[in-house]
Parts: sequence; C-alpha cells; structure tokens
Amino acid sequence: MSVITVTSQELADMSGEERALLINSLPGYKTGMLVGTCDTHDQTNLAIISSHFHLGSNPPLLAMILRPNTGKSERHTLGNILDTRSWTLNGFTLDRAARAHQTSAPYPKTQSEFDACGFEKEWLPAFAAPFVKDAPLQIGCVLREHHPLTINGTHMVIGEVQRLHYPAAARRLDGALALDVMGLVAIAGLDTYTQPDEGLRLAPANTDTASAAL
Amino acid sequence: MSVITVTSQELADMSGEERALLINSLPGYKTGMLVGTCDTHDQTNLAIISSHFHLGSNPPLLAMILRPNTGKSERHTLGNILDTRSWTLNGFTLDRAARAHQTSAPYPKTQSEFDACGFEKEWLPAFAAPFVKDAPLQIGCVLREHHPLTINGTHMVIGEVQRLHYPAAARRLDGALALDVMGLVAIAGLDTYTQPDEGLRLAPANTDTASAAL
Repeated sequence: MSVITVTSQELADMSGEERALLINSLPGYKTGMLVGTCDTHDQTNLAIISSHFHLGSNPPLLAMILRPNTGKSERHTLGNILDTRSWTLNGFTLDRAARAHQTSAPYPKTQSEFDACGFEKEWLPAFAAPFVKDAPLQIGCVLREHHPLTINGTHMVIGEVQRLHYPAAARRLDGALALDVMGLVAIAGLDTYTQPDEGLRLAPANTDTASAAL
Repeated sequence: MSVITVTSQELADMSGEERALLINSLPGYKTGMLVGTCDTHDQTNLAIISSHFHLGSNPPLLAMILRPNTGKSERHTLGNILDTRSWTLNGFTLDRAARAHQTSAPYPKTQSEFDACGFEKEWLPAFAAPFVKDAPLQIGCVLREHHPLTINGTHMVIGEVQRLHYPAAARRLDGALALDVMGLVAIAGLDTYTQPDEGLRLAPANTDTASAAL
C-alpha cells in the first residue's frame, strides 16, 4: 500500500483551501449538530457545527470551538451566545443532512437559517435559545466559561447541560444513549454525511483480561 | 414517539456512573484515536481517546482534552506530553477496535500499552513520540499550548501537526481524506465501535441554491 508523507513545510506550502480540507479530515468522524441561538431581539440563528466535544460529566459540560464575526465572514453564533448565555445542540438524521448542511451558507444576520433551511423553532419554558423541533436529540446549554484562543483567533465556549430531550427508545439500561436508534449522522471532513450502524459494543477494559464484545 | 426530558436537577441527582454514560453519549460519534507518547526515559504509553478536535488549519492545529494523573486513577499521557512536547494520533480499523479499547485498562506506568495490547511501535526520525505501526492514519503533533481548565480539572493541549502519513488511495483530488477508504472507526459513547460507510457528499452551501449531492 502506497503511503503519502506530508511534512510541516509541505503543509505550510499548500493553498489555504487544500490545507483546510486536509486538516479538517484529520479528527475523523464527528457528529453534526445544529446550534440554535438568538440575539437579545429574538433574531434566531441556526448553524451546523462538528467542533463540539465532551469536557466532563460532573458537572455535565460540553464545549465547542467557534469563529468570531469578522465582517468578511459573518458568523453570528458566538455573538448570540455571549449576549444570551444560552444555546441548543440539536442532532439530525440523514434525511435532513442536506438542509442541515445548507445552514453553512453565508446568510445575513437578518435571515434566520431556521426559516431559510426549513427547520421549525421550538421554544421551551425558561430557556433563552430555540431548539430544533423534532430533533432526535435536543440539548440545552448555558454558558459557563468563554476562552478566546489567541493562538488562532478562535473561541472556546464551555456550556453546562441544563436540559435534555431524547427518545425513550434510545435509552440503554445503563443510562447511555444508543446513537443509532436516534439515527444521528457522523460527518467526515467538511462535506460527507453518513449514518453509522449499531456497531460493536465492548465491556470496560481490565488489565487481566482482553476486551470482549458485550 | 415517547420523549424523555432530563433536567439539570435530575442530572445532578444521578449516580456518577449513570451520568458519565449519558453525558459521554451527547457529543455523538467521534473517531477513536490512539495517542502515542513517551517519557524522558523512553517509557512509552498508548491511550485511546475521542476528545480530540480540530482547532484550525492555518496553522494546522489539533487539540484534545486530557485528565491529569491523580494517583487514584493513573493517567500518563498528559505528563509525557508535558515532558517531551510531542504526541502521535493514530487511527485504527474495526478489526483492531478490541485491542484499541484494551488500552483504556489501568496499566501501571512501567507497562507500555503498546506491548500489553499488541501494537507495534514505529519511531520516525526527529520525532520524539512513537507512532503505531501500520495505522491507516498517523499524525505527529508538537505541543503549542497547554491550558489547565479550572472548571473541572481537565487539561486542554493544543498541538501543531508536524507530519502526516496516510494511504495514497485515501487522498481525494481536492486534498481531503476519504475516511472510509482508511477504514477509520467511529465511537459512540464509551464503548461502541462502528465503521461508517462512504456516505453522502454535499457541495459547499450557497445562499441562492439548496445543498446538492456531489
């Protein structure tokens, strides 16, 4: 099998677009989530991300990386989160992947991606950000910390999970969620959407036995 | 469809194990990676993670969340990274998932997971951390920033990609990598491994057209 080696110098010499496509491939699969936010005038925004990650379960913390609004490239999610300190993460199924992908188009701030891309807003009592109605997984987060990262001008926001909604059928007996039952998609790179199957489940690993399927 | 609602109070009232299983399910699918490190005496370590994420492509930055060594729960990756400022990320295929999962067992520092779990070390010139031989995707990172996160005692390390190795067959014409050609696995929660298919590829989204498959 022929293997390609890429050095740091070769990375530096690539065009910005080629490097972005390559480097965005490196983390592998991530689940796409639709981030719902609004500003203080209830102008809503919906944006697809795959830069969210688990930070810890006690307290229950999820974080994500966002780019600021530079004018050249309008991005409204970070500003809305800093204004209202709230956001929602909404999973989606493969039949909605094209509409979810469409939220990455550069809509102006006055045009909500909920409307432009055909998603219905769902407001829940005492939560400042809109959820995506009928999403198989809905997560409401409130801002706990905001870290501007000077290394490249991105921002990390850390949220505490305030409420969750998921289908009863997706709950395993041990409390974990079966992602395949929810039909969540995985994203590869910047443009490829796939729905993984049930997969192989392994028991917690111990030093005295090899890992075994459950 | 019956939907379960979980409030922040209910999350706080859960057992630690149940909450960990649930909250680790929320980010959805992530690709499992084996992190190769060594200490200043060449004692190697290999650990499975799914907390890595894309931070930016210019410069090419990948970050990950690590827990410190508390004595109670021995974790050696962070210490090794702070010692040598280097680590590798190595993808794996489904036929190696059980051995990759096995690296999460609590081996003592003197026992390398490379040996205990049946992975061969590959040392490359001028790189301080060991790669996993025959991994379909090998990424060498050097430490750029270290952020202890006081909110829950975890640590974020930010690395710059110094070198990459991947199969020529996985390289798309535009520079992105086809994850399915490499056979990378996606992980759901803490214990479920699956190999996604080729999936649906969508063109970059514009405001004047609906997203279309390529």
